[in-house]
Amino acid sequence: MSFIATPQTLHFDAPLALRSGATMPAYTLAYETYGTLNAERSNAVLICHALNASHHVAGVYEGQPKSEGWWDTMIGPGKPVDTNRFFVIGVNNLGSCFGSTGPRDVNPATGREWGADFPVVTVEDWVDAQARLLGQLGIQQLAAVMGGSLGGMQALSWTLQYPERVRHGVVIASAPNLNAENIAFNEVARRAIVTDPDFHGGHFYAHGVVPKRGLRIARMIGHITYLSDDVMNEKFGRQLREGLDLKYSTQDIEFQIESYLRHQGDKFSEYFDANTYLLITRALDYFDPARAHGGQLARALAAATAKFLLVSFTTDWRFSPKRSREIVKALLDNRRDVSYAEIDAPHGHDAFLLEDPRYLAVVRSYFERIAQEAA
Amino acid sequence: MSFIATPQTLHFDAPLALRSGATMPAYTLAYETYGTLNAERSNAVLICHALNASHHVAGVYEGQPKSEGWWDTMIGPGKPVDTNRFFVIGVNNLGSCFGSTGPRDVNPATGREWGADFPVVTVEDWVDAQARLLGQLGIQQLAAVMGGSLGGMQALSWTLQYPERVRHGVVIASAPNLNAENIAFNEVARRAIVTDPDFHGGHFYAHGVVPKRGLRIARMIGHITYLSDDVMNEKFGRQLREGLDLKYSTQDIEFQIESYLRHQGDKFSEYFDANTYLLITRALDYFDPARAHGGQLARALAAATAKFLLVSFTTDWRFSPKRSREIVKALLDNRRDVSYAEIDAPHGHDAFLLEDPRYLAVVRSYFERIAQEAA
Repeated sequence: MSFIATPQTLHFDAPLALRSGATMPAYTLAYETYGTLNAERSNAVLICHALNASHHVAGVYEGQPKSEGWWDTMIGPGKPVDTNRFFVIGVNNLGSCFGSTGPRDVNPATGREWGADFPVVTVEDWVDAQARLLGQLGIQQLAAVMGGSLGGMQALSWTLQYPERVRHGVVIASAPNLNAENIAFNEVARRAIVTDPDFHGGHFYAHGVVPKRGLRIARMIGHITYLSDDVMNEKFGRQLREGLDLKYSTQDIEFQIESYLRHQGDKFSEYFDANTYLLITRALDYFDPARAHGGQLARALAAATAKFLLVSFTTDWRFSPKRSREIVKALLDNRRDVSYAEIDAPHGHDAFLLEDPRYLAVVRSYFERIAQEAA
Repeated sequence: MSFIATPQTLHFDAPLALRSGATMPAYTLAYETYGTLNAERSNAVLICHALNASHHVAGVYEGQPKSEGWWDTMIGPGKPVDTNRFFVIGVNNLGSCFGSTGPRDVNPATGREWGADFPVVTVEDWVDAQARLLGQLGIQQLAAVMGGSLGGMQALSWTLQYPERVRHGVVIASAPNLNAENIAFNEVARRAIVTDPDFHGGHFYAHGVVPKRGLRIARMIGHITYLSDDVMNEKFGRQLREGLDLKYSTQDIEFQIESYLRHQGDKFSEYFDANTYLLITRALDYFDPARAHGGQLARALAAATAKFLLVSFTTDWRFSPKRSREIVKALLDNRRDVSYAEIDAPHGHDAFLLEDPRYLAVVRSYFERIAQEAA
């Protein structure tokens, strides 16, 4: 039984200058908070989300017992990030589709939905917007900023953009940038969406359609990269969907893995915004703090003053342990305080969202240290 | 300078019973031969092709100096499979789109193109059709049957379906069946094709269109799985396509890898048949000789009497060395004569088509042994 979470929104009238050179006019951020901000305002933890998640990080909504937040195993009373001790904030990023201003909203300059004209947002832009939100909440310094995958990139970027405002960076199943294969998968997914005739150049809202075909393909590709080869073989293997006899069909579902992927694709296409998919995968592609430092990650991370916990998972081939180790090395080159755990887990990239006792224990003990430091 | 190859066709009037229970009525196979069949008819080598290749294995076509066959590095006068010694046969599989009967041809029962009604063909069916072709060419026993990837599956299946007709099986970068991840990638590619509105349920020929969007996505996905992470990073990395400045666009090409993939997708969609793509990926999915033996590969391979060479490539994550080793082990369990080479090559699955001196040397020396045995 989880606690009740209540989504909130904050509106920002001041425009936000973006890395692209464009400006985001007035905008809204959706967020949730759990626990209580202490008198010193020193126990705040910001959680950054990955591709398809939101500000609904933990707890359930009133009357919806199955609406657990996406990191409910990690965050809550008595959990590794203990909301009896910490004041936890989840925020939906700009350009997403769960309550913060995004492509489905109306562009005040045109009076119609932003669609594909929504400004390209970067990890750095999101961090700027999150920093403003924290300002409004009266939080000058975070005890920790934490995220997995793309969320981990935001956590890392926080320590570089606002070093004085972060005591700990917790970067899980992440990478200092995408490699060519990561970009390649993103690009195929984007092409599937953009070439869907129902995309209408990104202005499909006006046509009353959704590029579901493209979204389905994008999600199916995503799911393959979230799972390890091992866990796929264990969960699905070559199991047939029906009985023991082959149907000999190229279009009907024959194997369980096909059924699973189609189902995931269908579900996703019902709720996720196609323009948001493009924006978020592009933010992933662009993130590369070393770029402004001649590709030298150690030089880029010199700006960070926080202490760090990094976690990776052995079977994660999307953001492999090697990529986390690059961050660890670059931080150590700068003589930063770094803890690193490489968890032997079979679940691939998805492992960061799952209930693995060793993983949860590592995070728990790190947050106990944070709590003791603050005490 | 390569030799001149000349495509030929043979027509078969007798229907072919397929594993699905369906029957392929009269059909044509396109093939090429290189070298000379010796008086004993003992020097024939059959080459089986993978997904998008054909009977044009080696040499060039008259007046087309750049039309080298897909395995021209491997096969020809003085090459590892030396056409001065061996009589080499390449054959285009049933259901393909390069000259053998396929979905673009007219179904005699309806008078219109087969399209999606083309019978589902399996690796075993292809081998049966190849065996008939060899019968017509007067070849009772092959010195060797050889193939890479899906071609390797055919080579393996030859040794099980017609053990007495094969002296050597050469199985390169292959697997005893697809794993869940392999099937998953095939399924996404098929969904991209089938959900393209220009697919028209597989009868797009009559509409004068081609489901190019789907074919492009399928090919882009394929290419990612053919290359290793390492070689992608080396060839493309995070290189921008134009200059040093980011464009901040979700739809324009920003990175070189995007440009490469889109180009590969565009090229493929110009020449490859969408229904063939479905058929060939399904043949891959279905191949599983252990299935009829309770999943026991060693029991399945007990039927083989040939000697074997298996080759795998360290960075091939589509058909990893582990999968080749499963075949090696199952053959050794049956006390078969097996040579196995694991080539340390950076190129991923594509390596089997590339000019790697160690790889070519392994195949060369194996075929020298075959030649000596025959002498």
